[in-house]
Amino acid sequence: MWRDLAPVGRFEATGGYRRYSYGAAELECRAWFAEAAAARGLSLDADANGNLWAWWGDPAAGDAVVTGSHLDSVPDGGAFDGPLGVVSAFAAVDLLRARGFKPAKPIGVAAFVEEEGARFGLACLGSRLLTGAIDPAKARALSDGDGVTVAEAMASAGLDPALIGRDQSRLDRIGVYVELHIEQGRAQVDMDAPVAVGSAIWPHGRWRFDFDGEANHAGTTRIEDRVDPMLTYANTVLAARKKAKLAGALATVGKVICEPNGTNAIPSRVRAWIDARAAAEDTLASVLAGLEQATHERASRDGTTVTVTRESYTGEVAFDLAMRGRLAGALKERGFGEVPVLATGAGHDAGVLASSVPTAMLFVRNPTGVSHAPGEFAEMADCLRGAEALAGVLEDLAR
Amino acid sequence: MWRDLAPVGRFEATGGYRRYSYGAAELECRAWFAEAAAARGLSLDADANGNLWAWWGDPAAGDAVVTGSHLDSVPDGGAFDGPLGVVSAFAAVDLLRARGFKPAKPIGVAAFVEEEGARFGLACLGSRLLTGAIDPAKARALSDGDGVTVAEAMASAGLDPALIGRDQSRLDRIGVYVELHIEQGRAQVDMDAPVAVGSAIWPHGRWRFDFDGEANHAGTTRIEDRVDPMLTYANTVLAARKKAKLAGALATVGKVICEPNGTNAIPSRVRAWIDARAAAEDTLASVLAGLEQATHERASRDGTTVTVTRESYTGEVAFDLAMRGRLAGALKERGFGEVPVLATGAGHDAGVLASSVPTAMLFVRNPTGVSHAPGEFAEMADCLRGAEALAGVLEDLAR
Repeated sequence: MWRDLAPVGRFEATGGYRRYSYGAAELECRAWFAEAAAARGLSLDADANGNLWAWWGDPAAGDAVVTGSHLDSVPDGGAFDGPLGVVSAFAAVDLLRARGFKPAKPIGVAAFVEEEGARFGLACLGSRLLTGAIDPAKARALSDGDGVTVAEAMASAGLDPALIGRDQSRLDRIGVYVELHIEQGRAQVDMDAPVAVGSAIWPHGRWRFDFDGEANHAGTTRIEDRVDPMLTYANTVLAARKKAKLAGALATVGKVICEPNGTNAIPSRVRAWIDARAAAEDTLASVLAGLEQATHERASRDGTTVTVTRESYTGEVAFDLAMRGRLAGALKERGFGEVPVLATGAGHDAGVLASSVPTAMLFVRNPTGVSHAPGEFAEMADCLRGAEALAGVLEDLAR
Repeated sequence: MWRDLAPVGRFEATGGYRRYSYGAAELECRAWFAEAAAARGLSLDADANGNLWAWWGDPAAGDAVVTGSHLDSVPDGGAFDGPLGVVSAFAAVDLLRARGFKPAKPIGVAAFVEEEGARFGLACLGSRLLTGAIDPAKARALSDGDGVTVAEAMASAGLDPALIGRDQSRLDRIGVYVELHIEQGRAQVDMDAPVAVGSAIWPHGRWRFDFDGEANHAGTTRIEDRVDPMLTYANTVLAARKKAKLAGALATVGKVICEPNGTNAIPSRVRAWIDARAAAEDTLASVLAGLEQATHERASRDGTTVTVTRESYTGEVAFDLAMRGRLAGALKERGFGEVPVLATGAGHDAGVLASSVPTAMLFVRNPTGVSHAPGEFAEMADCLRGAEALAGVLEDLAR
């Protein structure tokens, strides 16, 4: 199963994955999902929001136990972030069947679309649409770097963008959601724990900074005549790091686009995205407020203008306490011992679904802590342990 | 003539020009050049290096008086930088013929390819090849942002890249070269001078800085575990401005490319180009040395590595003194008064040709000083005055 999926969307030059929603590689991943469902006799069920579901049992029975993750990637992402949760879900179904388990409730395997937001800029788009966390009209109008909108991309993939939005009847049928994911830090390495249970997701968001100046000749425009937005941008990058570090928070500038991007022209515009996260919402708010102030101060020195747009924001998500306890108990019963309970700085569909259904997460150890990069890795033994843990949890929840 | 050329390669959204060597828009400009030559009964002569020539008289007679400029543009460049010199050359031929002038020497109109270096990264590629200032094998291997080499682009435009290189017999036939160009600063505005004569071109060059770090997850990688090349880059942008300003020089970062350029990933690499210029070569060298030192100091703090590559460099070019005097005299005789003599920070094909033939430049006033941007502008009256001046100079040189 893993072998079939591994080469899809892998970019030779970097070894990283480029699986962008509704792009060729991601469509191939979707086809793989359909095959994996068919091979197990699970009924395939593509919802109106671009998410895929595979059912063991009849979902109309309600109180379903759903598990899954996503198949899309960041640019040059790793092999595990997303796919490990989907592959482990199918593997858990196989394990339960091999044991002769007969679920009393329907079990679903889900793959949510555009979790990374790598194509349309908004993370967890599929789960946000499902739960009504984003206005459908606004979602349809989101566009990628080439100006293609979500509506256009969905239409070209054979989906009707008019039908997107909160899917109440589907939500009503879901009893619980459990997402298994590779850990994206090194906490489990330090604890020597192949498997952990999630407690919360840090508040996090993305802010777009548009720095506007005046294009001009790099060789003839006097220093005092320049209105160079690259300077304001550079100052913002350094200020973001400094303010985040002082607050114990995280701030990253991972994406920048310069216009016209000519070697011998002062830029007219620099557009950059700040990803910021913190353990508490007020910490995050104060980091951003300080950064905006520093940016505007520098802009007034450079003669540039800066516009800040909050493109996405997710407050703190604490996973359901009863679910956390139930997972820990089920794992202890099955010989996993006392599994650690961890918070994470990474966003997940589970964080979005937590507003609508009782939700929990399982993490699989990441020996290097590297993620969102080609070097992301998990040991096969830990992945199998993760699938065993997920099978145990599903067995407990669906009996 | 101007009206036919104006819409070619103009990008609606910005109003700027995108005429990249051997691209569709630039090929259309070349077709325009051939038509302008044919309409005047001038013989068209495309050389092996991608440059275009149109001859009034037989170039084999030798001691030719050549004028011209280039047709390519920077990304979102202005309408005048380059084309004004070519259009004025044809206009000057028209003016001389209307006066019944019979040149004693062949007069040539030239358009040099890839003057801006916007596609293949090396400015004045056509004139460098003609004069042997670049090794042909190195030139063939230069590649654009999509990995297309000069050799491939030339072949697809119907040229044989095996034939490029110093063209001694052509150089032997050229007696003098005069390039008319829009001024790219505001010196002539301050002097109230529609036309000026060039004295020198500042030493200038392009340096590529490759900042390498480690891609990782923006939401889960601790500050102390990060190896973020964007920080080193940002510090270099600010240091470049500071060091240039202190030295009375110019340094610009107009182009930056980030990999993988994902919002929620720490970059693995940031690649940026520094354009730097100064009135003296030792000033320029010391600005760069100081910048490299500051960059490496910051890199060692960030844990990143930086590689600096000098992609192009042109020492100071002082135009032929006798030619400068002759142009000034010819203009004074023809009622232009005492035209000012100016140095410029901008590179030109004239600067490259100056190593092989006596060379001079004429500048036409730029009321805003803006260049390499859509807002670049010259008054029609000044453009006509420039063509008159060029006609006078050609008359003086070719009689």
